Amino acid sequence: MNSFGRLFRIEILGESHGVCVGILIDGCPAGVPVSEADFAFDLDRRKAGRPGTTARREDDVPRLMSGLFKGRTTGAPILVLFENRDADSKPYEQARYPRPGQADLAASAKFGGFNDYRGGGTFSGRLTAPLVAAGVVAKRLIHPVSVAAALVAAGGSTDIEGAVAAAVREGDSVGGVIECRVDGLPAGLGEPFFDSAESLLSHLVFSIPGIKGIEFGAGFAGSRMRGSEYNDIIERPTGETATNNAGGINGGITNGNSLSFRVAVRPTASISKPQAYIDVETGQLRELSLSGRHDACFALRVPVIVEAATAVVIADLMLLEQRISRIQR
Amino acid sequence: MNSFGRLFRIEILGESHGVCVGILIDGCPAGVPVSEADFAFDLDRRKAGRPGTTARREDDVPRLMSGLFKGRTTGAPILVLFENRDADSKPYEQARYPRPGQADLAASAKFGGFNDYRGGGTFSGRLTAPLVAAGVVAKRLIHPVSVAAALVAAGGSTDIEGAVAAAVREGDSVGGVIECRVDGLPAGLGEPFFDSAESLLSHLVFSIPGIKGIEFGAGFAGSRMRGSEYNDIIERPTGETATNNAGGINGGITNGNSLSFRVAVRPTASISKPQAYIDVETGQLRELSLSGRHDACFALRVPVIVEAATAVVIADLMLLEQRISRIQR
Amino acid sequence: MNSFGRLFRIEILGESHGVCVGILIDGCPAGVPVSEADFAFDLDRRKAGRPGTTARREDDVPRLMSGLFKGRTTGAPILVLFENRDADSKPYEQARYPRPGQADLAASAKFGGFNDYRGGGTFSGRLTAPLVAAGVVAKRLIHPVSVAAALVAAGGSTDIEGAVAAAVREGDSVGGVIECRVDGLPAGLGEPFFDSAESLLSHLVFSIPGIKGIEFGAGFAGSRMRGSEYNDIIERPTGETATNNAGGINGGITNGNSLSFRVAVRPTASISKPQAYIDVETGQLRELSLSGRHDACFALRVPVIVEAATAVVIADLMLLEQRISRIQR
Amino acid sequence: MNSFGRLFRIEILGESHGVCVGILIDGCPAGVPVSEADFAFDLDRRKAGRPGTTARREDDVPRLMSGLFKGRTTGAPILVLFENRDADSKPYEQARYPRPGQADLAASAKFGGFNDYRGGGTFSGRLTAPLVAAGVVAKRLIHPVSVAAALVAAGGSTDIEGAVAAAVREGDSVGGVIECRVDGLPAGLGEPFFDSAESLLSHLVFSIPGIKGIEFGAGFAGSRMRGSEYNDIIERPTGETATNNAGGINGGITNGNSLSFRVAVRPTASISKPQAYIDVETGQLRELSLSGRHDACFALRVPVIVEAATAVVIADLMLLEQRISRIQR
Repeated sequence: MNSFGRLFRIEILGESHGVCVGILIDGCPAGVPVSEADFAFDLDRRKAGRPGTTARREDDVPRLMSGLFKGRTTGAPILVLFENRDADSKPYEQARYPRPGQADLAASAKFGGFNDYRGGGTFSGRLTAPLVAAGVVAKRLIHPVSVAAALVAAGGSTDIEGAVAAAVREGDSVGGVIECRVDGLPAGLGEPFFDSAESLLSHLVFSIPGIKGIEFGAGFAGSRMRGSEYNDIIERPTGETATNNAGGINGGITNGNSLSFRVAVRPTASISKPQAYIDVETGQLRELSLSGRHDACFALRVPVIVEAATAVVIADLMLLEQRISRIQR
Repeated sequence: MNSFGRLFRIEILGESHGVCVGILIDGCPAGVPVSEADFAFDLDRRKAGRPGTTARREDDVPRLMSGLFKGRTTGAPILVLFENRDADSKPYEQARYPRPGQADLAASAKFGGFNDYRGGGTFSGRLTAPLVAAGVVAKRLIHPVSVAAALVAAGGSTDIEGAVAAAVREGDSVGGVIECRVDGLPAGLGEPFFDSAESLLSHLVFSIPGIKGIEFGAGFAGSRMRGSEYNDIIERPTGETATNNAGGINGGITNGNSLSFRVAVRPTASISKPQAYIDVETGQLRELSLSGRHDACFALRVPVIVEAATAVVIADLMLLEQRISRIQR
Repeated sequence: MNSFGRLFRIEILGESHGVCVGILIDGCPAGVPVSEADFAFDLDRRKAGRPGTTARREDDVPRLMSGLFKGRTTGAPILVLFENRDADSKPYEQARYPRPGQADLAASAKFGGFNDYRGGGTFSGRLTAPLVAAGVVAKRLIHPVSVAAALVAAGGSTDIEGAVAAAVREGDSVGGVIECRVDGLPAGLGEPFFDSAESLLSHLVFSIPGIKGIEFGAGFAGSRMRGSEYNDIIERPTGETATNNAGGINGGITNGNSLSFRVAVRPTASISKPQAYIDVETGQLRELSLSGRHDACFALRVPVIVEAATAVVIADLMLLEQRISRIQR
Repeated sequence: MNSFGRLFRIEILGESHGVCVGILIDGCPAGVPVSEADFAFDLDRRKAGRPGTTARREDDVPRLMSGLFKGRTTGAPILVLFENRDADSKPYEQARYPRPGQADLAASAKFGGFNDYRGGGTFSGRLTAPLVAAGVVAKRLIHPVSVAAALVAAGGSTDIEGAVAAAVREGDSVGGVIECRVDGLPAGLGEPFFDSAESLLSHLVFSIPGIKGIEFGAGFAGSRMRGSEYNDIIERPTGETATNNAGGINGGITNGNSLSFRVAVRPTASISKPQAYIDVETGQLRELSLSGRHDACFALRVPVIVEAATAVVIADLMLLEQRISRIQR
């Protein structure tokens, strides 16, 4: 249940306050040069430490446990682990007051109360660090195809800094919108039906905690257009179009134009501003203020995660279409 | 590549102008009463014949080829076929002018030109008839959980009839927005990460031709809210909330409230209004008017398809959580 | 549960006395020339009609329902159906006396009694006709790799004809041993662990009804050898060995030599010779003689089925290693 | 490629001379009590240190990295790692002389020479330690179903000790035959076709290095019987039979009797007795004597590994049939 992909396959593991978080990458071709240093740039983009992000500090140094030899992938499964060091479990010690907007109650229902609830356990945003690590490998694999995502709005405003600062001041939080674009893609990726490019991308993107919407190309705005306006006129025999309302995907298949989509990130659930908590033992509502360390706008950290999810899907699709060789020399 | 699901699994097949379209349903519990008549209501909702829908007429009578005995499912794979009778392939005989907004070029790139291009081949909306059929079985299985979808806007307007009529008059087309709601769901469906409820629902919903966006609960609007506004306050120990900005899903897991999402349907690509077509042999653009039979607003037919996709996902998730018995007595 | 394969994937369907049996082949590359006539030779080898085989007659004419266009595969799923015409369900009408050596009781336990028990239902050897059909496509795909299987013993004797004739005379049945050999295989197919070449081949071969053993290369005899005797000495830098005790597989990976294995086929369960049946209602044992039409030695029909299973596995492995192109020109 | 299972899923990782070996167990129900101490008994059975087994010493202390909380499984993926400490890579430093009977050449062909060849890399028998660990969890899950395997012959002799001692003396090696039996199984596990009980068991058992044959019940001997002799007469309405030639499986489905099978283990490939090695650079054959630490009869260590593979398959099948609850209280 915790795996994704057909040929380039990832399986995620770990808990926020357990021993570690990590990812197991299976199906990566042999011969890809990978070192621990390669992960620094993207992991740094995901890391906390900017205004609006959590005070928790983790080195986020990936440990490459298997699948590498002499600096290259061997074709065997690659295990990347991140140890947990700065976990502070005290504020979480009881699920008596399930946090609004969090998975506490749903998780307890699902796992019969046996889930590790500390810091969100396996639901924690901390599991996105391993996903970013998988993205680093995938990006290298799909090169020169490029994936770039950016936060384009926070709290409904394009003045992202201002919106975040205001939320921090008030002990509140904001969400945001992220745009992602893939350039250099070949035409022909994706399947006509169940594994359409949109299906696979949305599947993995929605695994990122806090994502609540996705639209490709003109998306929801496109639903308000006429066909004569929406249709992207093909201008060259190779398929280039002037407009890109389809977001680079027709019939579930990439058409050779840039692939583009936008995702909606909900505001951080954990806020210090008082809100009503239910006491599940008594059924009483009670105004509480959450302590702990949180992001006022975790959407700030999400673009590199969206890139990783996208790169993983593209790597899988390119392998399926034999656009990437099983042995990389 | 053309299958979906872990326990309740479907695999789609067929072409618009081939012998048939169909679906193979594997993993359906034994003992579910199913007859050909059960399919009529939903298939009728999908059928053409209203203003704004194609003039092509098919009986859409499903043939149950396997997996049933004495009126009940046996636990073996269920094959449902729909024969093609009213296919008229003449208007499609050459891919020299790939249609704007269609998969013609992308499909040709993917399949090396060997794809059946007549009527969109395996990309045709006609393949949604089998998906609706799978939905009928799934709905019966998840009963009394209920799934209901409706078109709430066409061409950006809530006066759906008017918007469609205007498009028909002008030889143009419109898209729309569909809302879907699931009631009676247990908490605990979905997985923390790669198989979040949103991941699986979006995966299957995006396989429906023409869907270009999806948002759960408050979705994109939620990205503009503050956390204090967005968080759904839990009002009862069993998890009921007053608001439902999360759309019934926290951390990828259903929380016991209604599940709700909205999808954006693009305007129909095939329009009779003249538009520019490229001649892939000469590279020249040419104004052409498409003949053939098309929907001015195929979004009218999509709600029941969205319901089917949703019911299939819910059936799979309920089986995974052992909320549905492998033997139905 | 009824599918097999990663890239070249098959899903089987149908019942002995239902409307049809069939197979859905997904992931077949585009451009492979296939016609209904191509199936005749292998289907004929599987067919009944020789001494020792059942009196049931079916045309075994495959109907190609999807995935083909202008005589070639399109890359879309290929559905092959065989209609059932000569089914005679009368002798099977009650499961009150479960047949010794058959799945009657186990199937009833599994499916809560809802299974189609007529003629073995979905357990019938008739489902091997679609498997042979999938093998025909797979063989074409892996060409010039060749797969050849033959019955080398029946009832423990190499005088197959005599052993079968004796069994027929006595209303009894015999099993047999089949040898299969694959030539022209590249080295490097299979995975180090869970998807070893032996794992995948045995998985699919054991799906053939009545197979109860498999051994690769020297197999059980090899377990009695010394290492110095068993090890195949490599004689050329490209890996050729003089002996082939490993059956062409080292560490789960094909080594470039011929792949060879042997399978044990049990004697046909249905015999006309009287044997003890239990009355599941009263618990009394009763001597009964089974009517109906059966094979005294169905092992006679199994070699081509073993070839099909083998070819399907090889096709999947060659696609995984990118030894077969996704588009066949 | 390195995963197995539908609901109880395992994915193996690591190399003989890398950082670690390990296994990721996904889909294990929540609430199963598991501690590091639980692994000692089975890991000890697998461990080297008896006459005829390698001189390499590893603690084989499993580290439980995720998926456990307060001594019970949480429902999240369980990562079990074994660090490598006593690895001595020197004897392996060149693949110039590929070892007869080993995967050296095949692996190099598969992975383009990028594989970690030290100590067999990912092909090493050391990866069976994690498999045994997964078996420990699976055995707990399927309790009170019991799995027991034993070596019944070595080098073709039932005097196992004597056969091994002779091989050690001569710098040679022997293989063996292992019998495995499962008691307490419910009827109804397995699928009619591609996922027959034999298919799944053989799939996982053949992933164990060195296994070259498997037979269920009477197996190859059964192929020499008459049907009237082979058929297991059902003696009670619940399916008990006096004989068990079918090995507890009819039509791919467990029938409620004991499940039994035998596997053939080849003799250890690495022997110190001189044998001919090819120099892949010059193509010359050369008599060489292999140093390093090896098992003269690794079959001694295999029974507990066969048990683990069996328990993993049974756990998966019991979950599929809802015979094990997703939450264990």
